[in-house]
This record gives sequence, C-alpha cells and structure tokens, in this order.
Amino acid sequence: MYNFKAFLPTKLVFGAKAVEKLPKEVKKLGTKAMIVTGRHSTKKSGLLDRVLTLLKGADISTVVYDRITPNPTTEQVNEAADIAKKEGVQFVIGLGGGSPIDSAKCIAIATTNEGGIWDYVKVGGGKKPKSALPIVAIPTTHGTGTEADPFAVITNPETKTKIGIGYDVIFPSVSLIDPEVMLTLPKNQTAYTSMDAFYHSIEAFLNKNANPYSDLLAIDSMKRIISNLPIAYEDGLDINARTELTWANTEAGITETLTGVIANHAIEHGISGYYPHIAHGFGLCITGPYLFEHIFDFVFERLARVGREVFGIYECDDKRAARMMIGKLKDFQERFGLNKKLSALGVEKGTLGDMVETSYNAMYGVIETTPGDLKKEDLFKILERAF
Amino acid sequence: MYNFKAFLPTKLVFGAKAVEKLPKEVKKLGTKAMIVTGRHSTKKSGLLDRVLTLLKGADISTVVYDRITPNPTTEQVNEAADIAKKEGVQFVIGLGGGSPIDSAKCIAIATTNEGGIWDYVKVGGGKKPKSALPIVAIPTTHGTGTEADPFAVITNPETKTKIGIGYDVIFPSVSLIDPEVMLTLPKNQTAYTSMDAFYHSIEAFLNKNANPYSDLLAIDSMKRIISNLPIAYEDGLDINARTELTWANTEAGITETLTGVIANHAIEHGISGYYPHIAHGFGLCITGPYLFEHIFDFVFERLARVGREVFGIYECDDKRAARMMIGKLKDFQERFGLNKKLSALGVEKGTLGDMVETSYNAMYGVIETTPGDLKKEDLFKILERAF
Ligand SMILES: [Fe+2]
Ligand SMILES: [Fe+2]
Repeated sequence: MYNFKAFLPTKLVFGAKAVEKLPKEVKKLGTKAMIVTGRHSTKKSGLLDRVLTLLKGADISTVVYDRITPNPTTEQVNEAADIAKKEGVQFVIGLGGGSPIDSAKCIAIATTNEGGIWDYVKVGGGKKPKSALPIVAIPTTHGTGTEADPFAVITNPETKTKIGIGYDVIFPSVSLIDPEVMLTLPKNQTAYTSMDAFYHSIEAFLNKNANPYSDLLAIDSMKRIISNLPIAYEDGLDINARTELTWANTEAGITETLTGVIANHAIEHGISGYYPHIAHGFGLCITGPYLFEHIFDFVFERLARVGREVFGIYECDDKRAARMMIGKLKDFQERFGLNKKLSALGVEKGTLGDMVETSYNAMYGVIETTPGDLKKEDLFKILERAF
Repeated sequence: MYNFKAFLPTKLVFGAKAVEKLPKEVKKLGTKAMIVTGRHSTKKSGLLDRVLTLLKGADISTVVYDRITPNPTTEQVNEAADIAKKEGVQFVIGLGGGSPIDSAKCIAIATTNEGGIWDYVKVGGGKKPKSALPIVAIPTTHGTGTEADPFAVITNPETKTKIGIGYDVIFPSVSLIDPEVMLTLPKNQTAYTSMDAFYHSIEAFLNKNANPYSDLLAIDSMKRIISNLPIAYEDGLDINARTELTWANTEAGITETLTGVIANHAIEHGISGYYPHIAHGFGLCITGPYLFEHIFDFVFERLARVGREVFGIYECDDKRAARMMIGKLKDFQERFGLNKKLSALGVEKGTLGDMVETSYNAMYGVIETTPGDLKKEDLFKILERAF
C-alpha cells in the first residue's frame, strides 16, 4: 500500500520547434511580458531575438531583464520585480538555464506580493506568497527540471545561503521544451546539467516518500541519461541524444515534483553557496557517492535496483549489487571528469563547518526525507570525505 | 525526435483513506456542493453517508443527485444542472464509477454555460464550453481513468449516440483515489473495469501520437493489470492487488490524457450505445483482438513490444511476437470469460451497420489517430468477426 499526491498543473510542450508555439501558448496571459535571461548566451545564440520577434508578431510588448547571473541573487530578483511593477508586466518568461527560469519564478512572486523575495523564504521572512504572475519557461539546458516543478533556487549573498523555495503558485503555466535549442550547450555544461537531472531522479528514488509514479519516471530518466550523455558529450549536435537528455531532464523534474530530492542537494547548496564557481551538477557528483555510502544500510535495496535496472548489473545479493552500483556511478562520472575532490577546486577546509551550518538549516526539508536520520555531523563527515 | 504535449492540472491524492482528505482538499472550492452518484452502490456501501458526514463537518452544504444510471444520458445531466443552478451549487463531486463522475463533468459544463449538454458535443450543438464548475472525483471502480482525464462519456438516448467529450475545463480539480473503497467491487466489475484500463493503455500505446511519456505509463500499467487482476478476481479483498489495479487505472487515465485511445473505443461506443447492457470493458475485450489483427501490418512492432515487455514473450521476430501477444491477450481474457461473441450477448446482426454509422461519425477523433487509415467498412468487418 502506498500513499502519495501528484500535481503538475504546467502545460509541457515538448519537441523540435516548441519555441515557435510561444505566441499561441501565451495569448491568454496578457499583452505585456518580462523576459528574464542571462547576460550572454541567449543573445549569442540568437534565441532572445527569436523570442522577441515571436512576441512582437503577437502584439505582446516586452521588457527584457538580462542581468541574471549563475546562482542568481535576491538583489537581482528584487530589482527586476520593481521594474515589472513599474511597467505593468502581466507575465514573466524565463529564458535560459536554471538561473533565469528560477529568477523568473522569484520575480513572479516578488511582483505580486508585498516586500522582497527574501520575505518568502523559510529562513528569511517565512511568509507564504498568495499569488504570482503567470510564468513561462523556455529552458536552454537539460538540467534543473525547473520547467516541470514548483521550485526555485535563490542565493542571499549576505548570508551565503543558497536555498530552494517551493510553492504551487510558481509552477510554470506553460513550458516550451525544445531539444534544438540545447544543441549548442558546451561539453562541460552538457555533463553538469545531465548529472543534475540524474541526481534529481536517484535522490527521489531513495527518498523516504518514493512512490510508484516517481519511481517509474526516475528509473526511466536515469536510463536515458546513462545511455545518451556519452553520445552528446562527444557530439553535442547529435539531436537524438539531445532529445533523450532533454526529455530525461523534464522527466526528472516531474519526479522531483512528485517526491523531491534528498540530502545531496542540501550538501551541494552548501558548497556552491560558498563557492559559486562550482557548478551545481558538478557538486552533486562530488558528494553523491559519499552520501550513498554513508546511508548505505538504509538504501542498499534501492541502490541495488538502480544497479540492476539502470546500470545493467547482474548480481542477486542486494548489498553487493548496491556496492557495484556506486562503483559504476563513479566510473560513469569519471568519463566526464566529475570525480574531483573539493580541495582541488579551491574549497578551504575551514569553511566545511559553516557550509553544514548554513545548508542544514536552510535545506532541512530535504534532509528530513533522507533515509538514515542525518544530523549535522553526518553532513560534515560526507563533506570531509569529499574534501 | 518526438513532439508532444503533457497537461494534467488535476491534483491526484492516492492511497488508503484518501477520501478522508476531502474537507481539506475542497476548502477552497466553496460551501455548497452537489454530489452526483448512482442509485444504489454508494448508499449500500456507506460511502455516500461517509462523504456527507465529512462535508457537514466542514460546513459544506450539499445537494445529492442520485439518479445516474450506467451509460448516463443527456436528460439526467440537464436535470441535475437545472437543480445545481437553482440551488447555487459551487462545485460538483462525482462519487462512484465512471458514470457518476462523467456525469458530474457534464453537469459542471451544463451549469455554467447556456443551453443543455448536447450543445457542447461535437455532433450535437458543436459549441465549446467556456468554463465549468470545479469538479471533484471520488472513483469507486478501477476503470475509466476519468479521475485523471478531461473526458466524459455521455449517451443521447434519442439517437443512441454514445460519445466522448474532452475539454480542459473538465479536468477534475482534485481526485481522491482510495483503493479501500474498491474492495467491494464485484468479480465481474473487477474484470470489466481493469480491462477498460488495460485497453486505455494498449490503445494509447498503438496510437499514431504515442510518445515516450505515455509509452512508459502504458507499459507499466499493463504490467500491473496482467499481474494483479487474476489475484483481485479470486480475492476481491486483497488490498495489495486492489492498490495495484487502482494505480494502474489512474496511470492508464494519465496515458489516455497524454495520447488518447484509438478505434476500439469508437467501436465499443457503437456497441454499448445500442446495447447498454454490455459493459464497456467487456465490449472492448470482445472487439480488441480483432482490431489488432485488422491493423496488424501497421502495429506489429508495437504489439511485439507489448508481448515482450508485458506478457514476457521471448521471440525475436516481431511479427511472430505480435501474433503470440494477441494469443496471450485472448488467453488472459478467457480467464474472466471475456471472449464472448456479440451474437451470444443479444446483439442483432442487422444493427451492426447502424452502430458503425453512429460511432464512426461521433468518435471520428479516435479513428483518425488509429494506424491504418480506417474506413467505415473496416469497422464493419471487425464487428462482423466479433459477431
Ligand atoms: Fe538540482
Ligand atoms: Fe474506456
């Protein structure tokens, strides 16, 4: 017997030329949009211009906010929300990777609610937003899954707190998911974002609240990633591999919506909150295997299933299959240079304790759903091993 | 490369005691509800009383419309909508099998739009409803999948037209899916409704618009049905088997929402439109294998996949595996007495032509998505073989 909830009110439009469907899909949302994007990539690729032309053709006027950085900050969000209020923006379009889309979600909240975005963060003001502007997501990376979830990650630069918020009002109204716009994703981003999606699925699969719906999507998306990342990594223009990775990421996003991630994401937010140059997906790969070893006794049956169903391991003893699975995962990560030690990436040992302190409190929600009843000292031990 | 849309704005609450969550889940919908249910079973089982008590405790007043029959009619819907308007009902609760829930969806349309429900049927008035009352679904059978789709089936007794309508406004707001309320489902209903769900999945899997998301759910739900229907058929009180069948049905409903059924559902609506005593799931089993044989050349690769992944067939030749699959399906149906001929069920040969005429026009949408470009004469041949 299992109990769970499933809710995903986002309309997902998946496939080649999905971007072209923008005018039709946003017709109901209004005539004034804010496009939230980063500083460079959507300009260089021409995607921003393409979106602007599509909207102009549909008589939708636009404000472009293009100051979003990786690990977007509360300041950026509040600045954009002020502009949105002043300009009478009716809906927000997040265009780019996880950062612009998550920022669009935060801006959607900060525009229709009093105060700044930090008021709507649990360890900030702790308020719950009553509403948000409608959100449109156009992802250009196959990581984060934010196009299919109610989450946004935001960093408070003052406290170095990188935190995820989750509210039903920030499910995108519509997401246009076009594998063709991912073709130019560089090699390293291809690996980081795919592994972010992989960890969404495996963490949801290990989550105490795992259920048959999310299990099915989790296993399927991991299989797609394991089979297709090596291909897209070698040849970024392989449209079939890109399509598989793109769908795998959305699938993992749905999985995350259904069940949620576990402590590996808390630990990683600790790392990249302090060291923003470490990409999110990279950080997850560094600590993931150590987390699985740390909670091994509580999750080995599930790890064994991942071993058999995703990595094709033939071994009937669960503990042995689980150990083999962790080995196979490390081998896989090694192909993309993702098994580095934190010390090799500029992390200072003295900051590990602060990281734990910050992320344990900010991300307690995902620690609670991790099997093994983790305390701060557990996170510290995992970080030490990864150091 | 694949292109598809995924949209399911219904909140699914699945598991034991899901019904108890009714007050919490409907709080936002209003203080006056109409409960739409059948004449007997929810009274006999005590479920109607339980729901009434739950709503009373939440200060929600209720009107009960309990005149819904199997194959509900336009007259019943219009009568209930008149009451709903008069009483100022704010939301509708469909309580029971497919008939009461589909009726609740139709009542939700007929209450907030001008005219009667037939105005909002393609071969009727052909209008599109602009809105509908919020809908809550509490299914008591594990067939139809209506708790997770935007469809409703309604019969016009004058023309014997049994037709499916589909509009985003009739997605349930919330569905409470509780395997415990299915425990008393009789043997024959257990088989009929499970096979209805099976055909939703296999038809979606064969649909021209099949995509990886619906394929995944289709295969998984078929597996659950094949493994668990024999158990629940022998022991209706087996809660694990019931839970699996209940989730398989909702899963098949999601599949149907993502991709849709094909011509077998059109043919069956022809049959039960004229002979309402033939249960929907029974009718599907009678004609299904003949449809698959008729369109064999267009679908054998997919049938082979069902054979291998669902029925455990080891055979590398696709055509052979597909033929074996159809055989295994018939064997499976035979265990529940579902391979009858239409002639043995009181169908008269002279009505076959009329059935085709009525259902081809009314259900053209699902014929169009069937591989093999079916004409009226194809449907007639299939019905003749099933006769
Ligand atoms: Fe992530
Ligand atoms: Fe059906």
